[in-house]
Amino acid sequence: MPYADNGGVKIFFDTYGKGTPIVFLHPWTTSGYIWYFQIFPFARTNQVIAIDHRGHGRSDKPASGYAIQTHASDVAAVLDSLKIDKAILVGNSIGGMIAMQFTLDYPNRVLGQFILSSGTGLGEGMPKEVSAAFKTNYEATFGALLDGTVSAKTRKERGEIVEVMKSHFLVESNFPRHVFDSSFADPNGVFNWNIKSRLSSIKAPTIVYAGAEDQATPVAANQFLADNIPGAKLHVIKDVGHFFQLEKPLEFNAALKEFISTLR
Amino acid sequence: MPYADNGGVKIFFDTYGKGTPIVFLHPWTTSGYIWYFQIFPFARTNQVIAIDHRGHGRSDKPASGYAIQTHASDVAAVLDSLKIDKAILVGNSIGGMIAMQFTLDYPNRVLGQFILSSGTGLGEGMPKEVSAAFKTNYEATFGALLDGTVSAKTRKERGEIVEVMKSHFLVESNFPRHVFDSSFADPNGVFNWNIKSRLSSIKAPTIVYAGAEDQATPVAANQFLADNIPGAKLHVIKDVGHFFQLEKPLEFNAALKEFISTLR
Repeated sequence: MPYADNGGVKIFFDTYGKGTPIVFLHPWTTSGYIWYFQIFPFARTNQVIAIDHRGHGRSDKPASGYAIQTHASDVAAVLDSLKIDKAILVGNSIGGMIAMQFTLDYPNRVLGQFILSSGTGLGEGMPKEVSAAFKTNYEATFGALLDGTVSAKTRKERGEIVEVMKSHFLVESNFPRHVFDSSFADPNGVFNWNIKSRLSSIKAPTIVYAGAEDQATPVAANQFLADNIPGAKLHVIKDVGHFFQLEKPLEFNAALKEFISTLR
Repeated sequence: MPYADNGGVKIFFDTYGKGTPIVFLHPWTTSGYIWYFQIFPFARTNQVIAIDHRGHGRSDKPASGYAIQTHASDVAAVLDSLKIDKAILVGNSIGGMIAMQFTLDYPNRVLGQFILSSGTGLGEGMPKEVSAAFKTNYEATFGALLDGTVSAKTRKERGEIVEVMKSHFLVESNFPRHVFDSSFADPNGVFNWNIKSRLSSIKAPTIVYAGAEDQATPVAANQFLADNIPGAKLHVIKDVGHFFQLEKPLEFNAALKEFISTLR
C-alpha cells in the first residue's frame, strides 16, 4: 500500500526502482505528478520516492496542522515505512522548505539536498492588500500569482504547464480550500515559516537552483539560501520560472544527475 | 484506497473531480502518469479516472492473463468500485484497444470513446525477425521501436518524452519483463488481439486521432478503425507521433473537450 501513517494521517507516496533513494517533494497546491519526467528516468538507477504532502493529492487533508515541521515529519514517516535510513532530497518551493526543515530535524538521514526555487520567510514582505486579496478573491489572486511562475518562453511553447498549475488548486479533491486557509494562517506554514537564523547550521551538501524569471520565489530568495547554507552554490537558469523540472526537463535531469555524482 | 479488486488482482486508479466520468487508459509499458496534463485540467469539470493497467505501475502484475478482454474487465471493476454506471473512455494505443473491447463487452456503460493512436490485429504483418528480436534483444528492439513513436519536432523540442518512454519499460517495478513476455505471447494480447470483424457492431460515438508521424500504430491502422466503426471519424495531427496528449497537450485537450461537447 503506497501510504505511510504519521499519527493517524495517511501520506501517499509512489516509489519505483532500486539504489540510493531520492525523495521528490512537490510545490504547494500541486502533487507528486509534477515529477513525471524525473520519476521513471531516475528509477533506472535509484529508488525514487515521490510524496503527496498532507493536504494534497491522494494524502489525507486534516482541518489543520500545516506547519513545515509537520510536513517534514511526514517525510520521516514515509522513509520509516520504506525502511530507508538516508536519502537525497529534491524539493521545489514548499518542497524545498520541507527538505531544509527535514535536514535540520534529521541531519543524519540526508545525503544531500537539491533545492529548486524555494526560500524562507517568504511572507515577510507581503503587502497587506495581497494578503487580504488571497482571502477575499482566492481564485483570481492565486491565478495571477501563477501567471508569474513560468517564463515567457514556457508560456509561449508549453502553455499546458500554466494550465495544469491553475487546475491543481482549483480541483477541490486535489487541494481543498481549507488547506489553503490553514497553511496560510499557520505560524509555521508556507508563508510564515522562517529559518533564516538556522540556515548556517545545515550541514548536508546543498545545491540551489533558481529560475531567472520566477516571480514566486525570485532569484534573491534563493540567493539568500545559497549565501547562508555552508558550502551551498546557486545556479540561475535562463528562460525558466518556478518549475525547472517541467519547463526544461532534460536540463533539470542533467543538473540533478551531476549533483548526485558529487555525493559519492 | 485507490484500488479495485478484479478476482484477486488489484488494479490501481487515481480519481479527481466531479461530473460526467472520463476514464483514461494509457499505452503499453507506461502508466497513468502519462495523463498528467489532462487529469487536473479535466477534473475541473468532470470526474477523471486514470487507471494503471494490470502488469503496469502500481497495479498487480500476475504471471499471466494479459488478454485485452481481461484488461477491459479491469476497467469494469474500477467503475464498479466507484459506483459509476457510464463513462467516456479515452484510450491511447493498448488503451484504445481496451476501450474498444470494453465497448463491445459493456455497450451500455460507454457514453463515447476517444481512440488515440491505436489499432487491431497489430501483430499480423510483423516479420518473424522482428518478433524474434523482441525476445532475444528486448531492450534494443523495444528502444528502437520507441524512437519511431514521436515526431521529429517532438524529438527536437521535447526530448524528455523519448527519455520517459524508454525509462518506463526499463524500470522493472513499473513494467516487469514477464509482463512483456506474457502479453506478447497471449493469443488475445497486445499484438494478437484482433476485432476487425467486430468493429461494425460498435455503437458508441467514436472519434479516432492519429499522429501523422507515428510509426508504432501508423495512420493506416487508425484509418481502418475509423472506416469500420459506424459513424467514426479520423483526425490526423501534424508533427505528432504516438503520444498526442504529451506532444501537444493543449491541442489534445481542446480536441477532447470538443468531442465531449458532441456527447450532450
